[in-house]
Amino acid sequence: MSTAANKIGTDDIHAYMKALGERAREASLAIGRADTGSKNAALLAIADAIDAASAKLIEENARDLEAGRKSGLDAALLDRLELNDDRISAMAEGLRQIATLPDPVGEITGLAYRPSGIQVGKMRVPLGVIGIIYESRPNVTADAAGLCLKSGNATILRGGSEAIHSNQAIAACIQQGLAQAGLPKEVVQVIEVTDRSAVGELIRMNRYVDVIVPRGGKGLIERVSAEATVPVIKHLHGICHVYIDDHADIDKGIKVAFNSKTQRYGTCNTMETLLVASSVADQVLPRLRQMYDEKGVELRGCDVTRKILPGIAVASDEDWDTEYLAPILSIRVVEGIDQAMDHIRHHGSGHTDSIITEDWSHARRFLREVDSSSVMVNASTRFADGYEYGLGAEIGISTDKIHVRGPVGLEGLTSQKFVVLGDGHIRG
Amino acid sequence: MSTAANKIGTDDIHAYMKALGERAREASLAIGRADTGSKNAALLAIADAIDAASAKLIEENARDLEAGRKSGLDAALLDRLELNDDRISAMAEGLRQIATLPDPVGEITGLAYRPSGIQVGKMRVPLGVIGIIYESRPNVTADAAGLCLKSGNATILRGGSEAIHSNQAIAACIQQGLAQAGLPKEVVQVIEVTDRSAVGELIRMNRYVDVIVPRGGKGLIERVSAEATVPVIKHLHGICHVYIDDHADIDKGIKVAFNSKTQRYGTCNTMETLLVASSVADQVLPRLRQMYDEKGVELRGCDVTRKILPGIAVASDEDWDTEYLAPILSIRVVEGIDQAMDHIRHHGSGHTDSIITEDWSHARRFLREVDSSSVMVNASTRFADGYEYGLGAEIGISTDKIHVRGPVGLEGLTSQKFVVLGDGHIRG
Repeated sequence: MSTAANKIGTDDIHAYMKALGERAREASLAIGRADTGSKNAALLAIADAIDAASAKLIEENARDLEAGRKSGLDAALLDRLELNDDRISAMAEGLRQIATLPDPVGEITGLAYRPSGIQVGKMRVPLGVIGIIYESRPNVTADAAGLCLKSGNATILRGGSEAIHSNQAIAACIQQGLAQAGLPKEVVQVIEVTDRSAVGELIRMNRYVDVIVPRGGKGLIERVSAEATVPVIKHLHGICHVYIDDHADIDKGIKVAFNSKTQRYGTCNTMETLLVASSVADQVLPRLRQMYDEKGVELRGCDVTRKILPGIAVASDEDWDTEYLAPILSIRVVEGIDQAMDHIRHHGSGHTDSIITEDWSHARRFLREVDSSSVMVNASTRFADGYEYGLGAEIGISTDKIHVRGPVGLEGLTSQKFVVLGDGHIRG
Repeated sequence: MSTAANKIGTDDIHAYMKALGERAREASLAIGRADTGSKNAALLAIADAIDAASAKLIEENARDLEAGRKSGLDAALLDRLELNDDRISAMAEGLRQIATLPDPVGEITGLAYRPSGIQVGKMRVPLGVIGIIYESRPNVTADAAGLCLKSGNATILRGGSEAIHSNQAIAACIQQGLAQAGLPKEVVQVIEVTDRSAVGELIRMNRYVDVIVPRGGKGLIERVSAEATVPVIKHLHGICHVYIDDHADIDKGIKVAFNSKTQRYGTCNTMETLLVASSVADQVLPRLRQMYDEKGVELRGCDVTRKILPGIAVASDEDWDTEYLAPILSIRVVEGIDQAMDHIRHHGSGHTDSIITEDWSHARRFLREVDSSSVMVNASTRFADGYEYGLGAEIGISTDKIHVRGPVGLEGLTSQKFVVLGDGHIRG
């Protein structure tokens, strides 16, 4: 489909999306029952097709980059949009890694005899059709398609209009790989119309779509959550905390607090607020200030912090609720673990929070009582990631409470049904 | 609160519900971290309070029954509304059974070392605040409160206005038990206003409520699903199938088909449509007809069925999509397993479906390919039930695909967060 053809009328979009949904539902039957070998073969064939199409992908990506420059996309967005040899290899490698992961589909757990004589267990099954809505980074097209495919789901992908040529070129590789493995090409469909109303259709097609995974900025996620009637697995934002306890090993505290902020600034698992117990603040803060200064991290503090670190800016009420995604850190001195957990409860986003302590009871309480998708002891918040957790890859990080929390890998894209085995058993 | 006081203005309802929500959120912290012993003590104390209040419960229930008779409730509803000694004992016994179940909260699974040196696992945690909306049967008040309490959740209960006095009397027993165990009484709150707009508030209080479980007729569920912004675990309806395969043991097929329909008519796991492979229809249907006739079950059939069973009514297109909840059964003769699964896919409700077969491959395919919350081989659909499955008790049966499918016990009222243990580990 040419760029011109990517603009169509509203009625046409409705019909286009309905047809897409019907094909996805139909294809979900085939991929749901496909054996592990076929799914892995498809993943490897797609990886090979991507490697082979490297030049073509860079060419199509150049069209997007040029259009992006003309329309004034900022440098960060252009960087995320860009495909180069390394990124293309990484994309193919990611698919090969998904092929090595265990297939979650069909796994039966807990199968046990009941007093009635029946056996009851649970079988892991695909969700059906997954709609993925994302922005900028074209590698999501391959990642998301690969994870959904391996977990036995059909996928409808909707990338940003700024990446339309890149995404369609990647989609062509996916189709080729699916065909080579003997799977229907409708297992992965990329929406080719760039009109925003296609998203509106996608998130309300309850008959054809089982779950929506939005990946992108807060604006996108909020819009999707507010309008979707299909269930959404969403990642809202990450306001992550490190709390250095009064029983912390100071060196570990400094190491983890530094890494959690500076290892990367723009990621959702980066620490945004540092909480320090008042009894250790004098030992911790001056040393950390020097390290952050060297990295150019701007510090904003509560009154007590500012007495220990004179000259830093005031942290306003708004700061405690802000995901900076930048070299800025707010710091608050707290009385101890209770006030720290209270702060996290009121200002955290339920993403990732870490305590630094050598105290057994404090560690145990923090793990149990902090209600975040990842709760850590003596570890950097930057570890909150599908690869680091051993999920192999992630489709996103859920800050929701039901279905799945934290990094979402293959298992998060499945559900469990009951299986009951009998031999003519009836209920008395 | 007296009946007169149960009617208040809309602004007041908003304020009333908000206050209820705030108290529930606060109480969820206490119950979330309560140890297993305290929760079990509360369950046993509530059970004792219910037993001790038996006379009072019957008295209050009599007020509801009288009002129900005056307002013209039908006999079935009045029966469901009634509390008697047996039902009250059963309610108390149900709570004592919940006390014996393992506590799901805090269970850590899969804790394993990663190459980076951190340990990563999952901890089972409560959802937070659960809103339960139900009709008629006052025993749900105790059941639902007990399950939510044991799984570490705070609960807001909204029963039908026809059961308001019964529900409030049961609530008083619950409060008494909670207090005896030293838990805040706000862990379980019963909405005391009967105005329908209270439900509208409850299902949109995303800040205070984490999940809604509606229990009742299709009208209630559809209204809640359409209007809720809080995630809903819903049980829409049960159009359950038994398929007697061409490789079935005929005796088992007849036994299971008879039990699945006649063991109880009004339940969601009752078979509504019988599918029979054409090669065995001649052997199966005449014998079954005789048995169903004796029970007074009305049969409606497809053309082929009506040739084998002359004189029975025609099954219309509508019949295949109908949950009779009555002694009526639709019967279709199919070519074999593929047509049977196709019928189930188009007309089933994803609740419970059973195949009767001695054929290994057919059983294996049916288990894998039928996308229902319970999939059975050679067993009666009537087994789809929390007690029969060993969950101990159920808060409902989910026909949704995400979070939880089938009978929902304690585990379905929880989620899992990641726990990460390190010793000063940072990401490189």
